[in-house]
Amino acid sequence: MTLEVGVLGYRFMGKAHANAMARLPMFFPDAPEIERSVLVGRDEEALADAADRLGFASVSTDWGEVVDDVDVFYNLGPNHVHAEPSIAALEAGTPVFCEKPLAPTLEAADAMAEAARDAGDDVPAGCAFNYRFVPAIRYAKRLLEAGELGEIHHVRGRYLQDWLVDPDAPWSWRNDEELAGSGALGDLGAHTVDLVRFLVGDDDLAGEMERVSGHLQTFVDERPVDGEDETRPVTVDDAYSAQLAFENGAMGTLEASRFATGHKNDHTVEIHGSEGSLRFSLERLNELEVLRADENRGYETILVTDEDDPYVDHWWPPGHVLGWEHTFVHENYEFLSAVERGGEFAPNFEDGLAAQRVLAAIEESDDRGEWVSIS
Amino acid sequence: MTLEVGVLGYRFMGKAHANAMARLPMFFPDAPEIERSVLVGRDEEALADAADRLGFASVSTDWGEVVDDVDVFYNLGPNHVHAEPSIAALEAGTPVFCEKPLAPTLEAADAMAEAARDAGDDVPAGCAFNYRFVPAIRYAKRLLEAGELGEIHHVRGRYLQDWLVDPDAPWSWRNDEELAGSGALGDLGAHTVDLVRFLVGDDDLAGEMERVSGHLQTFVDERPVDGEDETRPVTVDDAYSAQLAFENGAMGTLEASRFATGHKNDHTVEIHGSEGSLRFSLERLNELEVLRADENRGYETILVTDEDDPYVDHWWPPGHVLGWEHTFVHENYEFLSAVERGGEFAPNFEDGLAAQRVLAAIEESDDRGEWVSIS
Amino acid sequence: MTLEVGVLGYRFMGKAHANAMARLPMFFPDAPEIERSVLVGRDEEALADAADRLGFASVSTDWGEVVDDVDVFYNLGPNHVHAEPSIAALEAGTPVFCEKPLAPTLEAADAMAEAARDAGDDVPAGCAFNYRFVPAIRYAKRLLEAGELGEIHHVRGRYLQDWLVDPDAPWSWRNDEELAGSGALGDLGAHTVDLVRFLVGDDDLAGEMERVSGHLQTFVDERPVDGEDETRPVTVDDAYSAQLAFENGAMGTLEASRFATGHKNDHTVEIHGSEGSLRFSLERLNELEVLRADENRGYETILVTDEDDPYVDHWWPPGHVLGWEHTFVHENYEFLSAVERGGEFAPNFEDGLAAQRVLAAIEESDDRGEWVSIS
Amino acid sequence: MTLEVGVLGYRFMGKAHANAMARLPMFFPDAPEIERSVLVGRDEEALADAADRLGFASVSTDWGEVVDDVDVFYNLGPNHVHAEPSIAALEAGTPVFCEKPLAPTLEAADAMAEAARDAGDDVPAGCAFNYRFVPAIRYAKRLLEAGELGEIHHVRGRYLQDWLVDPDAPWSWRNDEELAGSGALGDLGAHTVDLVRFLVGDDDLAGEMERVSGHLQTFVDERPVDGEDETRPVTVDDAYSAQLAFENGAMGTLEASRFATGHKNDHTVEIHGSEGSLRFSLERLNELEVLRADENRGYETILVTDEDDPYVDHWWPPGHVLGWEHTFVHENYEFLSAVERGGEFAPNFEDGLAAQRVLAAIEESDDRGEWVSIS
Repeated sequence: MTLEVGVLGYRFMGKAHANAMARLPMFFPDAPEIERSVLVGRDEEALADAADRLGFASVSTDWGEVVDDVDVFYNLGPNHVHAEPSIAALEAGTPVFCEKPLAPTLEAADAMAEAARDAGDDVPAGCAFNYRFVPAIRYAKRLLEAGELGEIHHVRGRYLQDWLVDPDAPWSWRNDEELAGSGALGDLGAHTVDLVRFLVGDDDLAGEMERVSGHLQTFVDERPVDGEDETRPVTVDDAYSAQLAFENGAMGTLEASRFATGHKNDHTVEIHGSEGSLRFSLERLNELEVLRADENRGYETILVTDEDDPYVDHWWPPGHVLGWEHTFVHENYEFLSAVERGGEFAPNFEDGLAAQRVLAAIEESDDRGEWVSIS
Repeated sequence: MTLEVGVLGYRFMGKAHANAMARLPMFFPDAPEIERSVLVGRDEEALADAADRLGFASVSTDWGEVVDDVDVFYNLGPNHVHAEPSIAALEAGTPVFCEKPLAPTLEAADAMAEAARDAGDDVPAGCAFNYRFVPAIRYAKRLLEAGELGEIHHVRGRYLQDWLVDPDAPWSWRNDEELAGSGALGDLGAHTVDLVRFLVGDDDLAGEMERVSGHLQTFVDERPVDGEDETRPVTVDDAYSAQLAFENGAMGTLEASRFATGHKNDHTVEIHGSEGSLRFSLERLNELEVLRADENRGYETILVTDEDDPYVDHWWPPGHVLGWEHTFVHENYEFLSAVERGGEFAPNFEDGLAAQRVLAAIEESDDRGEWVSIS
Repeated sequence: MTLEVGVLGYRFMGKAHANAMARLPMFFPDAPEIERSVLVGRDEEALADAADRLGFASVSTDWGEVVDDVDVFYNLGPNHVHAEPSIAALEAGTPVFCEKPLAPTLEAADAMAEAARDAGDDVPAGCAFNYRFVPAIRYAKRLLEAGELGEIHHVRGRYLQDWLVDPDAPWSWRNDEELAGSGALGDLGAHTVDLVRFLVGDDDLAGEMERVSGHLQTFVDERPVDGEDETRPVTVDDAYSAQLAFENGAMGTLEASRFATGHKNDHTVEIHGSEGSLRFSLERLNELEVLRADENRGYETILVTDEDDPYVDHWWPPGHVLGWEHTFVHENYEFLSAVERGGEFAPNFEDGLAAQRVLAAIEESDDRGEWVSIS
Repeated sequence: MTLEVGVLGYRFMGKAHANAMARLPMFFPDAPEIERSVLVGRDEEALADAADRLGFASVSTDWGEVVDDVDVFYNLGPNHVHAEPSIAALEAGTPVFCEKPLAPTLEAADAMAEAARDAGDDVPAGCAFNYRFVPAIRYAKRLLEAGELGEIHHVRGRYLQDWLVDPDAPWSWRNDEELAGSGALGDLGAHTVDLVRFLVGDDDLAGEMERVSGHLQTFVDERPVDGEDETRPVTVDDAYSAQLAFENGAMGTLEASRFATGHKNDHTVEIHGSEGSLRFSLERLNELEVLRADENRGYETILVTDEDDPYVDHWWPPGHVLGWEHTFVHENYEFLSAVERGGEFAPNFEDGLAAQRVLAAIEESDDRGEWVSIS
C-alpha cells in the first residue's frame, strides 16, 4: 500500500519534509511507500512551482478537501494555521504531522490535543520536534535512560540566533503576536522545552517541569516593512529566559534569542547528573560531549557516527558526518512507519501541548513577575 | 618607606596572597616595598608553621592589636569574621583588603561599606574580586569600554564546581548559614556578580542590575562530619540560578553549583552586544573568545599573552601562559600601589556591597517566589 | 535532453553518487536532467538489489556495452578496474567520472590521462576528489586566491583513520598491492595531495610540489581472511608520511594512517602564509578556522553556512549544517553540468595524474631513501 | 646546608630560573635551601640591575672564578657559550644546569657530555628541557609507562612561532649560525626531540629514533640590523621538518617554524598507539587530551590540576590552573634536590647530546637529500 501524503506549506519546512520523504526509499528501505500526492497553499503560481520542485503530483488551495482525501496530512504552515486544518484532519481520521510550536495559544494547543485523543491511538498525531532525531541526542537519551548520568541536578538549554540584531531587519509574521503567538519563546523555546523533556523528563530522571520563572524582552519595538515606507510594531519577544524547577528536585535554565550576535542556529543542551555530565550543540550535531564520572575526568568528545549509533547504519561509514536535514529523514521515517502500522508516535500532540504549557507558564510568569506552576 | 602588612588567615587565601606579595619585587619593580610583618590566627602551632612557610616576620592571635599597628590589613578569614576586624582597622585609619564575599549578611556588608566611607578616600578598602585582574578579562573590559560590542543585550555568567556532588563529602563551615552566609551563591555567585558588574555595569553599557529572580536549591540536606560519627545539616544552597534585568534593557542569567559533575573551577562569562559577542572561561584563563561583527563571522580565540595585553609585559614573551595565581599578583600590585599613594582602588567595599545587594535580592526572590528590585 | 548515466560499482561510492544524482532536481534545479539508466556489476543478484534500491532503470554485467550506450559513464569500481573501462568510454566519446585514486599505478594513470586528452575538451573526464566541493574548502580557496593569506610558507595535510589498528581486522582488497596499488597512501593520500594542490597549487601561491621525501610503513604484515582459516599478506602500506618542497619555496608535510586510534575519517589541512593561516577538519566540515593577520590575533571559527557561502544558497538557512554526502551533490552538479555544456570540469584526469605522480614519487623516495623530484 | 648558586645569564632564562628558585621555599618546603649567590655577565651596569631585580647577592664578569666557588652553576647564556663554562664547572666538580640546546654543534655537545661523565654520577649535569616538567606531560608519561596506549605507531611533534614572519623583523644572534648553531631546528626542535624521547623513548614503547629525513628552509635571507642602516645574512633555518623511523617500528614527523602566522608558542605533541591516543599543546598546558580505546570513543579533555596529578599538590586546588613558569619551578626543584643528595637528574647532558645527535642528523639529511641513521 502506498500512503498518499498531503502537505500544507511549501517554504522552508515544506522543502525539509519533501526532501526527507524523497530520501526514504534509498536509505530506509523498510519505510512505507508514500506518494507526495498533493501540496496545499494559497498562491497558485508559487504553489505550482513548488509542487514541481518538491515532487508533488498535484496541488490544492483548499485544505478542507485535502484532509479527507489523503492518508496522511502534514501541516507545515505558520503557527496560526496549525489548529483548524489539523483538527479537521484528525476528525476525518487522517493522521497528522504538525510543525512546532503546536499552536500560537495554549487554548488552540489544547483543542488540538483533544482532537488527537478523540481520533484514537491508531491515528498518529505527531508534533515535529525534529531534534529528538539527531543521532547524538538519541545517544544521549540512551545514556540517560541507562542511568549513566545518575540523579539529574542541572539542565541548561539555549537556542541562539542573531537574525534580528539589526534594527533594520524587516518585519515579518514572526514578529506579530496574532500570527506567531510569541517570538523566540515559541519558535526556539518550544524546541528546547521538548528536547529537555525528551532527555530528562522520565520519572526516574528529572521528571516533568513543575514550576517556572520567565523573562521576556523585546529589544526593538518596531521594524520596517520590506519594500514599504512604514514600520510595524513588534508584538512578540526577541528573547526569553526561564528558570525551571523539576518534579524530582533538579534545576534548569532556558534561554533563546534572536539577538545573539554571531550565533546562527546554536541550540545547546547541557546536563549535570550525580554520575556524569553531557553537552550538545546543534552546530556540531555529530558530536556529543560526555563525562562519566567512573571512567572520565573530563568531557569526551564522541563523534556519533559509528555503525551502532542511532540511525547511523542507514547512512555512511564511521566519521562521515550527517547534516541538519537528516533529522527530518529520521523523523519522517518514524512517523510514517507509525502511520503504516497504526501505532503510536512520539513526540505527539500531547508532547506539543506539554511544551506549550511550559511556554504559556513562562509568559504568565513574566507578566506576573512571579513563579508559576505548570498544571 | 616599607609598608608593614598584617594578614588574618593563612590557609588557601593566605597562601595565595603571600605568594603574590613575594613576587612583586621581581616582576613589578615599581610596586611599593612591603614587609610581610605579622600573620594573625587562633591556632598557635599552625600559625607558627604558616608564618615560617609564607615568610611572615611575626605572628599574633589578637587581630585587635594588629589592625592598629600595621600599615595595611588583609582580612582573609572565613566570611563571618570579615566585618569586625575590617571595621576596626578602618576606624584606626588602616587600609583594608578583604576577601569576598564582603560579609555573610547584607547588614554586615553595609556596616563595612559605611566604615570605609568614614575612613575616607585616602584609606583604600579593597574587596578581593581577583578575577577582575585576569589579563583576558581586562582585555574584554577594554573592548567593552571602547564600545566594540555595541549595545549590550545578553549576559550569562556561571561558576561550576563539583566538590559536593558526592553525598558523603564531609560537612564544612561552607555548608553552614551562620558561618558562611550562603553556599554557592555567596562563594561563587559573588565572583560572577562582580565580574558582570565590572564588565558591563557602566552606564553606557548594560548599567546596574535592576531586578532579579532567584532560585536556590540544596540537593543534600545533611553531611557527615569528618572523623566523627554524626552528620550536620546543610543550611545553605548547593546551587543557585538567577535571571537579571539590567537598567538599560539587557537580560542576564547567572548560575553556580557545587554539583556540576566534572567541572572543577569553571567560571565563565558570555556577552552578546549589538556589534559583537565574547566568551571567557577561567579554566582557559589565557584565552578570550571575541566576535566583532564588522570583522568576524565566528568567534576568534585570542591568546591574551601579547606584550601590550594587560599586565603581560611584566611577565613572559607572547604565548607563555599565565596561571590562576597571577591574578593575585596583579590585584596586590594595584591595591598596594593605591595604599602607597593614598588613592582609590577598585573593586572596593562599595563594589563588595553592591554584589552583596544582588546576592541578597536573589535569596529574597527565591524566598518570595517573585522578582525583587535591587535598591 | 535527459542524460543517460551508466554507473559501474554499487557499493559505498555507488550509493554516494546515486544519492547525489537523486537530490539534484530539488536542490539544483538548473542541473541537467539525468536518468540513472544502467548499473554495472558482476554479481547479478546483488546488482539487481542495488539497482532497485539506488533507482537504476536497468542493469548490466558487461561494461563494454554500457560505455558506448550511455551519455555519461561513472567508474566507481575498485582501483584496478579504473583504467580499462574509463579508457574505453573515452574512446567512445563518452564523458567519464572516475573515483580516486585515478589508477593503481602511474602507468595506468598516464594512459587514462592520455585517453582523456585524445577525447578532447568537450568530453569531460572527471576524477572524483569530492573534498574540493566542501563549502568550507571552497571558501578557503576564495581566501587563498584573493591573496588573503599572502605568500605560502607551510602546508600540512593528514588523513587519519583507525580501522586496521586491530591486528585481527580482516584482510580485504585494500590490503593488496595488485588490487589497490597502495594502502593509506593511495586511498587517503590521494585525497590530501589533491586538496593541497587545489588550495595552494596556483603559480602565485605555493605552486606545484617539486620534490618529496616519503616514508611508508606496514605495521601488521598479514591478516586473517574473513570466514576462512587462513591469513593473507598485507602488501601495501598501513600509513605513510611525506615531506614536500614546493616550487615557490613553501614546505609541506603529509601523513595518513589506518592506525590512528580513535580517528574515523579525520582529514585535515593547515596552511600558514605570510598574511594568515587556516585550518580545516573533515570531521567538522561546516567549519573553517581562519586567521587573517590584519584583522585577527587568533583563529576565527567560521561556520560556513551563510547564504553567500559556496553552494549554501541551494540548501538551508545559516547555521543548518550540511553533511559529508553533500560534497557528492555539489560534485555531481558541477560534473554533469560540464557534460551538458560539453565544457571543462576540474578535478579532471590531469589532476588525477598529477596526484598519482606525487604518490608514485613518495613511494619511490621511500624505496630509495632519498628525496625524489616530481617530473 | 645552603647551596650557593651561580648563574650565567640574566635575560629571559635568567629571570625564569631566578623566579623558580625564589618560589621553592613556599611551595616545595623540602627543596634544598639555596642562595642566589652570584650573577655572571659582561655588561656591568645591566648586570648590577639584574642582580638587584632577580635577588642575587653579588655579581661577577668572570665565569672562570665563579664555577669554582659556587655549589651549583647555571649556564643560561646563548648557545655558543654553553660549552666552555659548563665543562670548566664540571671539571671543578660543580654541578651544572645548562639551557638547551646543549651546544651549537655536535662536537661541543659531545665534549660537554664527556665532561659530565668524567665528573661522575654524584655531580649532576642537567639540560634544561623544561617541558618534561609540565604536569600534563608527566601525566602523559605515566599513561605511556603503564602501557595504556599500547604499542606506539605514530608520533607527531611540532613547535610553531611566528616572530620572524615579518621580513623586516630585525636580525639577532638567533639568525646566525656561528652564535646559535641552527635556527628553529635547534631552538625549538631540541625541545620537541627531547619531549618525544621522554614520552616514547623507552625500550618497550617506540624506543630511540633510528633514522631521520630532514628538511630545512630559510624563507628570508637577510634582515635589517636594529638601529643601523644595514642588513645581515640569515645563516640558519627559519623552519624545519623531519620524518622519523623509531627502533620499534613507529613513525614520526617533527616540525618547527618561526613563520607560522598567529602561533606564538604552540608546542604540540600527538601520539597514536594500538590502545589509545593523546594530544598536548603548550598553549593549553593544563590540559591533556586522552583517548583510551577500552573506555573512550573520543578524546577526553583532562584538566590536569587534580591533587594527585604530578606536582599539583604543591600548588592550588583542582581547577586553579598553572602557567608556563611553573615548569621551571618543578625543574629547579628536581635538579637542586639531585644536587643536594648527589644523585642523578634527568634530563641530563646525555639527553642533551641525544637530542643534538637527532638535530645534527636532520641537518645532515637535509644537506645530503637522503635518510640518515642516528648513530
